[in-house]
Amino acid sequence: MLLPFNRVMRNPTLKTELETKGLGDNYSFGFPMYTVGQCADILIFRPALVPVGEDQLAHIEPCREVARRFNQVYCGVDPQTEDEDYVKAGGLFPIPQGKVGRVARLIGTDGVNKMSKSLNNAIFLTDTFKQIKKKIGGLYTGRQSMTEPGDINNALFQYVRAFIQDQERVAELERRYAAGDNIGDGHIKVEVAEAIDKLREPMRERRKAYEGKDGDEKILSLLREHTRRANDAAEETLYLAKKAMRLDFGPRRLLFE
Amino acid sequence: MLLPFNRVMRNPTLKTELETKGLGDNYSFGFPMYTVGQCADILIFRPALVPVGEDQLAHIEPCREVARRFNQVYCGVDPQTEDEDYVKAGGLFPIPQGKVGRVARLIGTDGVNKMSKSLNNAIFLTDTFKQIKKKIGGLYTGRQSMTEPGDINNALFQYVRAFIQDQERVAELERRYAAGDNIGDGHIKVEVAEAIDKLREPMRERRKAYEGKDGDEKILSLLREHTRRANDAAEETLYLAKKAMRLDFGPRRLLFE
Repeated sequence: MLLPFNRVMRNPTLKTELETKGLGDNYSFGFPMYTVGQCADILIFRPALVPVGEDQLAHIEPCREVARRFNQVYCGVDPQTEDEDYVKAGGLFPIPQGKVGRVARLIGTDGVNKMSKSLNNAIFLTDTFKQIKKKIGGLYTGRQSMTEPGDINNALFQYVRAFIQDQERVAELERRYAAGDNIGDGHIKVEVAEAIDKLREPMRERRKAYEGKDGDEKILSLLREHTRRANDAAEETLYLAKKAMRLDFGPRRLLFE
Repeated sequence: MLLPFNRVMRNPTLKTELETKGLGDNYSFGFPMYTVGQCADILIFRPALVPVGEDQLAHIEPCREVARRFNQVYCGVDPQTEDEDYVKAGGLFPIPQGKVGRVARLIGTDGVNKMSKSLNNAIFLTDTFKQIKKKIGGLYTGRQSMTEPGDINNALFQYVRAFIQDQERVAELERRYAAGDNIGDGHIKVEVAEAIDKLREPMRERRKAYEGKDGDEKILSLLREHTRRANDAAEETLYLAKKAMRLDFGPRRLLFE
């Protein structure tokens, strides 16, 4: 009973997803099973930390419950053990923690929702500088003039803090914007677009190496190589888990032919 | 949407199982997921026939639905296609049929329920002839004398037809039993026990080869060898399925080290 049925169905993300999509009672078994698959995808690498956006922290909870229960049931770890001590106490799985980055959640170019491809409010890694400038330029601030004091928590300033690396410049922009000190939205928007463009420049360069004639084959061989490496880690965990459950037939290895 | 949520939860076997075990709302997600796992375990070998007891025919239905839907969605097979024509029409999966053997369901030594280890009404492959004789000897027929006409559909005669190979002898036993022609339950029971013992003799012999010093290692290497063979078949199907879904990175192979 590593994952009780009710626990899976009670998952708030599942409920929200079914409501948002208006699926009612008519949805694939894959929806609730996604939680289980996600636990497996995380735990197979026995991580201590899982990089997530803040809205994904809830997703990690079932995974932490499965890790605790597996350690208790199959590795004989005392249920009173503190989360950080499970491995020390003989458990196979660390109880993974969500690791939220400096930008916990990035607002979309609509200034309302989380940035998302399906909501069409996203900046893509493949966008040109011109496209980025246009998207950032469309951000609504409601500000009328260069001398009107602005809200440094608006969408534009979330981008300022997310993308402009020079912290002194960020502080200066915030000070002048809040004071309405002769600073226009347009200029800030261009600065943000340039910062995003600079961030993406090396990505765009690396991407070029995979375009053209042998690009697809290069990408496939990267996918194969990293799948192979991920599988090595996965098979090791699987072996140790089966051993703990007394179900192992020996270590295995998955190879591409 | 290869397997709708409601379709899985409506599974009569799942409902019965949860009721029989008195689990109420408190059960593992593994119960409904079992249906999905069973579909995968069957379809991965792309079988035309699946050997089952008659009470398991219902289990194969979701598997047939998944096969049809996969073929329609990813291989472009017309939904109007007859089950037997799916592969001819370009489908990856045949629509598997249940294959029920000559003995569709074997009654237990309690004479009431299907033979089952957990109901403690089973004859084991490891039972000695003495143990088999005792178990068969305990079958209740309600018959009082050698001249009382008997019911040739009772539990004892289900065993007679299941295990005695000589069809003329079976016919003779049926005729004399029905007529009360000087034939005792005890004698028939010994004949059945002998027939079962004869059936198991070669199994018992083969088993001996895996007892003793290197037995465990021999069994492990058999398990590894057959897992490897099953995996070759599974990886081939997985490759073809991913190709149909345009998700393949190339054929893979699972090896024991």
